[in-house]
Amino acid sequence: MASEAAPPFIEIRHAGEHAGQEVRVRGWLYNLRESGKLLFPILRDGTGLMQAVLFKKNVPEAVFEQARHLTQESSLEIRGVVRAELRAPGGFELDARDLTVYDAVPAEHPYPITPKEHGIEFLMEHRHLWLRSQRQVAILRIRHQVIRAVREFFDNDGFILADAPILTPAACEGTSTLFEVEYFGDKAYLTQSGQLYAEATAMALGKTYCFGPTFRAEKSKTRRHLTEFWMVEPEVAFAQLDDVMHLAERLVAHVVTSVLAHCRSDLAALERNTAPLENVALPFPRITYDEAVERIRAAGGTMEYGTDLGGGDETILAQQFDRPVMVHRYPAKVKAFYMQPDAERPDLALCVDMLAPEGYGEVIGGSQRIHDLELLRARIREQNLPEEAFGWYLDLRRFGTVPHGGFGMGIERVVAWLCGIEHVRETIPFPRTIYRLFP
Amino acid sequence: MASEAAPPFIEIRHAGEHAGQEVRVRGWLYNLRESGKLLFPILRDGTGLMQAVLFKKNVPEAVFEQARHLTQESSLEIRGVVRAELRAPGGFELDARDLTVYDAVPAEHPYPITPKEHGIEFLMEHRHLWLRSQRQVAILRIRHQVIRAVREFFDNDGFILADAPILTPAACEGTSTLFEVEYFGDKAYLTQSGQLYAEATAMALGKTYCFGPTFRAEKSKTRRHLTEFWMVEPEVAFAQLDDVMHLAERLVAHVVTSVLAHCRSDLAALERNTAPLENVALPFPRITYDEAVERIRAAGGTMEYGTDLGGGDETILAQQFDRPVMVHRYPAKVKAFYMQPDAERPDLALCVDMLAPEGYGEVIGGSQRIHDLELLRARIREQNLPEEAFGWYLDLRRFGTVPHGGFGMGIERVVAWLCGIEHVRETIPFPRTIYRLFP
Repeated sequence: MASEAAPPFIEIRHAGEHAGQEVRVRGWLYNLRESGKLLFPILRDGTGLMQAVLFKKNVPEAVFEQARHLTQESSLEIRGVVRAELRAPGGFELDARDLTVYDAVPAEHPYPITPKEHGIEFLMEHRHLWLRSQRQVAILRIRHQVIRAVREFFDNDGFILADAPILTPAACEGTSTLFEVEYFGDKAYLTQSGQLYAEATAMALGKTYCFGPTFRAEKSKTRRHLTEFWMVEPEVAFAQLDDVMHLAERLVAHVVTSVLAHCRSDLAALERNTAPLENVALPFPRITYDEAVERIRAAGGTMEYGTDLGGGDETILAQQFDRPVMVHRYPAKVKAFYMQPDAERPDLALCVDMLAPEGYGEVIGGSQRIHDLELLRARIREQNLPEEAFGWYLDLRRFGTVPHGGFGMGIERVVAWLCGIEHVRETIPFPRTIYRLFP
Repeated sequence: MASEAAPPFIEIRHAGEHAGQEVRVRGWLYNLRESGKLLFPILRDGTGLMQAVLFKKNVPEAVFEQARHLTQESSLEIRGVVRAELRAPGGFELDARDLTVYDAVPAEHPYPITPKEHGIEFLMEHRHLWLRSQRQVAILRIRHQVIRAVREFFDNDGFILADAPILTPAACEGTSTLFEVEYFGDKAYLTQSGQLYAEATAMALGKTYCFGPTFRAEKSKTRRHLTEFWMVEPEVAFAQLDDVMHLAERLVAHVVTSVLAHCRSDLAALERNTAPLENVALPFPRITYDEAVERIRAAGGTMEYGTDLGGGDETILAQQFDRPVMVHRYPAKVKAFYMQPDAERPDLALCVDMLAPEGYGEVIGGSQRIHDLELLRARIREQNLPEEAFGWYLDLRRFGTVPHGGFGMGIERVVAWLCGIEHVRETIPFPRTIYRLFP
């Protein structure tokens, strides 16, 4: 299709730089409107939408006829001159001179996803195509920016990426929520968290993070759970609980600011009210678990002191703040064995959960870790965990142990919150749930 | 240990900014030398090495005595004044005023990894500690920079990250090299490549990449193989083989330049001769498979025309070039079913492998993909693959198919090459091989 004299291909996102020039744009038909001697195909190329204007007298007759019958998602190329047009999507349109079809989707076997409403099961079954929808593209772009901002934040702060393994040996905390893998006649398990490994790399690198997929074979089917999800887990040598909270709030503020700065049109495509996101500035409120329980009860919640917060409790509490809130010092018995007890109240763990506003629930969970060998060993025994499986983890307390801490942030929940969408299944390209492993 | 008046903690990498100031540095004892009334502890904190000078008369006597007996990897804090000292590691040393021990490793149970030589099995078994060695820290830092440079390259070029799933349904290409996972009573498999999924997202986003762990249950035990490794896989709508090669060489040149720019001291710690890396400039040589076979045979290799290149063949060929070489158009029958045939010689695939110099083998494999529905279906049948498992993949050719292509780059092999190390097992924090799933 290209010839020596053919004008250059451009990406739609760059159209504004080519106003007045003849260019070629290629992509897929998003929409087509006809008005007498004019056709208005809208093309999508993954970087944006652009409307072309085909004036019957400006293009060969056969081209005009072919264009009239183009169906959704047919692939094509349009040659034309870019001109500013405020009413067109993106602010520029293409005054077409020629149109070449790569692949016309036959009318008798049309693209299955139409502007009409489809059931969620149908859309999930066609996820490989559903991703082309403008809403899904906007979510993917925001996800991209969230991940980019997270990495930027840590890289610019001197953290070294050291990814934890996915395949892990022993089932340290019981196998009930672990996926089991056949490993050359042995058993391996898919990681639920890279934290224990990040503690080892923090002792080597000072400040480190791992960032990869994690897995949970949970039978719970809620709008906040996937079986495969991405998590970033920083870990810092010498960090105490206050340092962990400060790091967490700085990270989240950076991510929100970055998405607001780079994804305005994607947020608009999702009709996201950005006012609540603009509020997300430092410092974030910090309340103790004790205060959280009081607040939840005062607001009509019925939670019992000493239990973990449920999803409903989190929502009640988060509604009282205009930005993420950090709840610290939970009862040690509802939290993980490795959390450092509070020196003043050893029944409390030096831990923190960050709850997103607007009912999006927990996005971060972290703590200071037990650095004393005997205390950690006692906890492992109390909880009937297999001590031999933790030998290497205990080594970190045998050879130059220091206070340290970190947290995990679940990417899909952050994306759901920033996008303002109800269910995490749309926040990852190919979601995996208890009922879905396809495509 | 901190008091109101205590001087600030600094990271060793920032020591130069504090010359003349009193600071505190904390970390682990890397080395200790004694000379009469002077002690020279070298501290590592993950960001660098720093020597302190303890002059007996400048510190309390008990502190000096305690410091004299400190063992390797004991954790401690030193307060002192930073001063320039060309002979010290890093160019600055700490004129110590006080030293506080966090955790003294007992002499009767010393840190197991000493400067003497250890066997590889011992080191792998102690990987959680081995990572603290200067050589391992240097490799991890280079790995960090490689990954950062890869993401920078794609992000700055308008690519959108869209990660492929790790848990996949059908065993598309046979189960012999796949890890099987119990999935709620069903079978899932760990991904070997995100490519097929990236093809779907490329049709949504134009230019996309996925970047995550991939898995191969290969029984082969070579210095180039891990069972779990990280791969970046860009995929581009409308890209043809030449575009794929151009993208691949630009990426690799960027990564090498970036590592040379940011990791000089790490490369020096590994005693890496950087001259061969400085050569890596565009364009990279491109030779056909046919020419590659001729060259290998002329150089004494015995490979048969029509077979894939073996590791030895790759080394012979790569030695003939001073930078990575791209070998394109292999016989279709030794390559994957989805590769577009060459229009002029349909027995050849429009594919490319990039071989690193200095015997580091294949670091990139890519191709233009078959975009014609019937041709792809025929290939699936010819190779006796289960067509129903590829239904969604075929959909990409049913609804606005376009030429497209991409490649995969294995991170561990690139890191091994840039570090100049023999075996990929040192290029990832916690390597997984057929015999190793621990720690």
